[in-house]
Amino acid sequence: MGVVTSSPPPSGPKQDRSRVTRQRLLQAAVDCLAEVGWAGSTVSVVAERAGVSRGAAQHHFPTREDLFTAAVEYVAEERSGALRELAPRDRSEVVAALVDLYTGPLFRAALQLWVAASDEEQLRPRVTELEARVGRETHRMAVRLLGADESVPGVRETVQGLLDMARGLGLANLLTDDEARRRRVVAQWAELVDGALGHG
Amino acid sequence: MGVVTSSPPPSGPKQDRSRVTRQRLLQAAVDCLAEVGWAGSTVSVVAERAGVSRGAAQHHFPTREDLFTAAVEYVAEERSGALRELAPRDRSEVVAALVDLYTGPLFRAALQLWVAASDEEQLRPRVTELEARVGRETHRMAVRLLGADESVPGVRETVQGLLDMARGLGLANLLTDDEARRRRVVAQWAELVDGALGHG
Repeated sequence: MGVVTSSPPPSGPKQDRSRVTRQRLLQAAVDCLAEVGWAGSTVSVVAERAGVSRGAAQHHFPTREDLFTAAVEYVAEERSGALRELAPRDRSEVVAALVDLYTGPLFRAALQLWVAASDEEQLRPRVTELEARVGRETHRMAVRLLGADESVPGVRETVQGLLDMARGLGLANLLTDDEARRRRVVAQWAELVDGALGHG
Repeated sequence: MGVVTSSPPPSGPKQDRSRVTRQRLLQAAVDCLAEVGWAGSTVSVVAERAGVSRGAAQHHFPTREDLFTAAVEYVAEERSGALRELAPRDRSEVVAALVDLYTGPLFRAALQLWVAASDEEQLRPRVTELEARVGRETHRMAVRLLGADESVPGVRETVQGLLDMARGLGLANLLTDDEARRRRVVAQWAELVDGALGHG
């Protein structure tokens, strides 16, 4: 089980158009969430931003919750795909790439959804499930890219802590551009993690 | 400069009453922010929760931004005070206490304010300044409690990364009770930090 759909979508010109519309809506939804937050993000606002009719938007996503959870999942999957194709030279490159997952519009959008879900009952179970799924997938990729052996005691927690640190660095970057500090922290922790993981 | 006010407040029965009202408003504001989020947190809602008239609340805090930034600062200072009085037996106790700063209502409230500030222009500079101040104070306390020598290369970044990890763990705890996992991660990272810092 992962964030990838398990069967290929139907193909043909009509399906292609429908898929393009869907993708435009999903991308617009993430951008909207990242820029104006949950309170200002509605299906209508996203439809207008995507240049799609409100009716077409509601055909694809009957509810606001459907649209925004699908949007965060879609972009998370795009990012995972890019990470899977990474051929890193060393662990410090992997650590930097993992931390990059938590900066930029996807993280901002996911954070808005996450915080909104903490006090909205109809959103909470869906976002909780989505985050657990994306989290597992990210952990699996991190283990593989770092060449970490999880049968060794402490290795699993070292990788988890690294992803928690990446999430915390993303949060610190929300209000101020934190890049210079982040790079120094990443360089130091890449060394500590490398020492803790031993030979991959 | 720290989060502590630099001069003692005036004293006397009237000032005492005023201070009690102020503190009740601040505590109610943090609870409100943590429970219902920024969109539902207004001066009126907080005044009612605190059992204070709307006029009295506005006398203390003319704007919504005044009330909520003061509230997050007030509770952050309470928590810092508790941490300053900690007499830890070892570094793993310090790491656990630092991580505890990022779970519970204060972190939830601060996170709501932080995310709201990312897309509200009148809130953003104040929250940015507040977070920087609280962040510096937390870093200073962490250095002291861990017995870390920041003149050694890498030590500053080790401590910063630890606080970023603590923040990330707090975020992971927002939607699901994450305590069992968090404890294992904290135990492992306490060991990594202890090894990296050497003799304090």
